[in-house]
Amino acid sequence: MQQCELCTERHPREIWRCPQAYVIDASDDDVPGFIRVISTHHVAEMTDLAEEDARVILRLVLAVEGAMRRIMQPDKVNLASLGNMVPHVHWHVIARYRDDAFFPNPIWGPRLRASPGGDVLAQRRARFRELIASLPEVCTGALQ
Amino acid sequence: MQQCELCTERHPREIWRCPQAYVIDASDDDVPGFIRVISTHHVAEMTDLAEEDARVILRLVLAVEGAMRRIMQPDKVNLASLGNMVPHVHWHVIARYRDDAFFPNPIWGPRLRASPGGDVLAQRRARFRELIASLPEVCTGALQ
Repeated sequence: MQQCELCTERHPREIWRCPQAYVIDASDDDVPGFIRVISTHHVAEMTDLAEEDARVILRLVLAVEGAMRRIMQPDKVNLASLGNMVPHVHWHVIARYRDDAFFPNPIWGPRLRASPGGDVLAQRRARFRELIASLPEVCTGALQ
Repeated sequence: MQQCELCTERHPREIWRCPQAYVIDASDDDVPGFIRVISTHHVAEMTDLAEEDARVILRLVLAVEGAMRRIMQPDKVNLASLGNMVPHVHWHVIARYRDDAFFPNPIWGPRLRASPGGDVLAQRRARFRELIASLPEVCTGALQ
């Protein structure tokens, strides 16, 4: 029997955790502002969750969006719960920039250009570290 | 000045409307189970909305997901708020099937096979009509 990769008590890129969800760094150099909010319950769909658990997850997703906008100043935020590959509820919260490799496509769509490197990437990486540093307080605050 | 295509008091494919959101049929033969929940307010991000307006929209998204699962029995539901093309909050609620043209990719990813036609498509189309017929009651109920 295969273990679900999201059913873990300590994800290697974990930032914060509560009984309903944990939050991880999902970034890479193509998508330097990328957070996932992952259900602690192994269910495929939001409507499989108890109403209160779904409510907590959505509050966290919106809190991450708010902090991401404030700190990373993206041109757009993308939110998605897909789970076609890993049917365990997880939300993608993605900072999008007009000059990123995929914009205006979703990051799962065709690549349209090279990702910015150099100073632009370094600045986004720095802001993302600042976002990560803020998330424990942001997430805790969102549930109060 | 260009008019936002989602700022309309009566969308041609509209199914239901309340003060915070309206719901449209976004389906086609590739994606026969596809509903959009669209903010009536012209804002780019969920965190631009008043908290109550965001709450209403998310309740509607989850209510549509629930009805879609019950009636269309998809293998997965995909939820997404992207808005890179049209920066006016709108949610995609998509019934996914293992044999659809894109699965397990997002519908914005590479096409992997031909879409099912014939009886399979006819059945999904019939179930989608049933879903649409249910949505006024489902959406009204979700906000009570």
